[in-house]
Amino acid sequence: MRQISEFDQFLIDQYPLKEEYLHDPKRPVIYELLHVEKHTGARLGRIYTRHGVVHTPMFMPVGTQASVKNVSPRDLDEINAQFILSNTYHLWVRPGDDLIAKAGGLHKFMQWDGPILTDSGGFQVWSLSNNNKISEEGVDFRNHVDGSPMFLSPEVAMRIQNNLGSDVMMQLDEAIPYFESYDYVKNSVERTTRWAARAKIAHQRPEEQALFGIVQGAGFKALRQLSAEGLVDLDLPGYAVGGLSVGETKEEMNRVLDFTMPWLPKDKPRYLMGVAAPDSLIDSAIRGIDMFDSVLPTRIGRNGTLMTKQGRIVITNGKYKDDFSLIDEETEDFGSQHFTKAYLHHLFKANELYGQNIASVHNLRYLLKLMEDMRRAIYDDNLLDFRQDVLENYGYNKPNARLF
Amino acid sequence: MRQISEFDQFLIDQYPLKEEYLHDPKRPVIYELLHVEKHTGARLGRIYTRHGVVHTPMFMPVGTQASVKNVSPRDLDEINAQFILSNTYHLWVRPGDDLIAKAGGLHKFMQWDGPILTDSGGFQVWSLSNNNKISEEGVDFRNHVDGSPMFLSPEVAMRIQNNLGSDVMMQLDEAIPYFESYDYVKNSVERTTRWAARAKIAHQRPEEQALFGIVQGAGFKALRQLSAEGLVDLDLPGYAVGGLSVGETKEEMNRVLDFTMPWLPKDKPRYLMGVAAPDSLIDSAIRGIDMFDSVLPTRIGRNGTLMTKQGRIVITNGKYKDDFSLIDEETEDFGSQHFTKAYLHHLFKANELYGQNIASVHNLRYLLKLMEDMRRAIYDDNLLDFRQDVLENYGYNKPNARLF
Repeated sequence: MRQISEFDQFLIDQYPLKEEYLHDPKRPVIYELLHVEKHTGARLGRIYTRHGVVHTPMFMPVGTQASVKNVSPRDLDEINAQFILSNTYHLWVRPGDDLIAKAGGLHKFMQWDGPILTDSGGFQVWSLSNNNKISEEGVDFRNHVDGSPMFLSPEVAMRIQNNLGSDVMMQLDEAIPYFESYDYVKNSVERTTRWAARAKIAHQRPEEQALFGIVQGAGFKALRQLSAEGLVDLDLPGYAVGGLSVGETKEEMNRVLDFTMPWLPKDKPRYLMGVAAPDSLIDSAIRGIDMFDSVLPTRIGRNGTLMTKQGRIVITNGKYKDDFSLIDEETEDFGSQHFTKAYLHHLFKANELYGQNIASVHNLRYLLKLMEDMRRAIYDDNLLDFRQDVLENYGYNKPNARLF
Repeated sequence: MRQISEFDQFLIDQYPLKEEYLHDPKRPVIYELLHVEKHTGARLGRIYTRHGVVHTPMFMPVGTQASVKNVSPRDLDEINAQFILSNTYHLWVRPGDDLIAKAGGLHKFMQWDGPILTDSGGFQVWSLSNNNKISEEGVDFRNHVDGSPMFLSPEVAMRIQNNLGSDVMMQLDEAIPYFESYDYVKNSVERTTRWAARAKIAHQRPEEQALFGIVQGAGFKALRQLSAEGLVDLDLPGYAVGGLSVGETKEEMNRVLDFTMPWLPKDKPRYLMGVAAPDSLIDSAIRGIDMFDSVLPTRIGRNGTLMTKQGRIVITNGKYKDDFSLIDEETEDFGSQHFTKAYLHHLFKANELYGQNIASVHNLRYLLKLMEDMRRAIYDDNLLDFRQDVLENYGYNKPNARLF
């Protein structure tokens, strides 16, 4: 049994878990809306899965290759991680989805008994592989490890994810640049919808794993609508908004969410892929997003950047050499509460890998706590005050408000 | 309070701690002999320090740069590590002993509240630095980080270790190759004894930190005697045997211990530097050694080699790709009890650093448990049976008995 926070326990006391959702034989993922924030429309909710119940809005740490980099499953448990993400493409290439199926599935393989979401592999095919060529059938490419030719289709993405046994599976979509022509995006969106339909048909374990569709359409309102309507017609258990956080401005992202979200059903979870900047998390939750993920906290952690209530800290900066204050008094991870900035500075300067663990766990804990506080603010109907408070401290619109 | 094993608790019940040793205002390190094994002379004992009491024979994990590589202090606590070692040379170069003194000392800096031993820095000066030149005064050299000229003398080594605040400090000695001429070794031994005398004079905190002398003399019986007698005359709180485990055979090492140990006082701890091979640990304990250290378990762990009761396992070997048995059923560290060999194989193949943590903690736990079992065998007067059992299983004189 994973640890849950005091506030999540409070929520369970306030809104008892529904027995029929816990034991629904047909639906592996069920969303329950608990409360809508009065001033913004942000959703406090929960997601029932075969591996436990989680409260939303929530952030998912990323374990790309069946391991959150330099972080143990016990660390994740201790910082109240509830749901993690792993990457289909990476696991397909190495060690292989067949091997993980033989191991008893991804949960058992990596010893994480909470829910897992896997992406479709599409994003990595576009960003990591070579010579990729898309057709109606799927994508031909060469993998980034040994250059072998591989073929990914909606059906293959489902077969792999069925082998992995993740709680939430993502359909294969085409990850396109934000600024493409209307015609290009329209064709792509229509194909992505056809791929979603094929994925649904190919799905072998619909009672154990939930398939999410991905709404695309770049910055075109009509195409986002086209995409959402096509996917909603398929009656999938959840929907993601894709093609954001790929270089567009934050205003642009908010604008797209503003006109996209109303097309999505209120009784299903909504997932915004690849976002971890505190301001974006809050602004997207305000627009009705429930789930987030990003490699950002662990990636910048490995480089010595810490996320704190007072903004970012680059621990390798010389000014921390003899700073004997705690890493971050306000964040409750073990490292932040036990080690000084001077010690963490030393570990990074001396290339001691334990420093990467401290910083990665810290950043994850910062974000998980931010989400917990956000849930509380939604419950208390004071999300806008919370937003103001977080952003003023973290440095929104201040010189250190660099977007990650 | 650090965790201790059931057997160490049993020893405390059998041989209650001596109040006067716990609170001796003058002696920071006191050795208490509890039992001598009937058939071998191996010593079951304990060492009282200002940071706790430990049972011997024992093995010290090495935290070179104020961190046991990729291992947290909590991991160390969980596997019953009792005493750790850190490297004076490395801490002197980076972050600097002054900074650690300002941090409140090494224990506080690295958040390890158990006893710490620091070496003199001499070994790294010989092995890592450039242009080193020895004189009666000390050693001139250039450091391995930025090439700065530095000077290490018996006094400097003491100043640094006084700043670090370690429980056991080592005198500066000359680390010489095993096969040098008698005359060269004799001169070196005599200088090392003079350096020990200078170190004792330079020591600023004799009531808090214990200075150990280092017996040198390569393979020459007369010179080992000369060295031991000179150092014992200084009445230091403990003694190390140096200049072994540097390429000589195991038989040669045993031979040197055989004729060296009788010269050392029975009421002081004896420390054999740089040894971690199971057969050597047992054979040296049989000859009266109480303390060991080595980077070996963490170093080979980082490369994917595991120490187990059945011998070494190289987890990157292809045969572990689909081996879904536990990493090591017989060793009680978290990783060994939760993950399969296939998973650890995958982590190493995919360059996931969490694998290094699993393997390093595992190897340390293997050795700490070996030492605990050795203490039990000494208590039970069946150390030779224990030796036979360990070595037959681990692979002594068998094809996989490669010496580390």
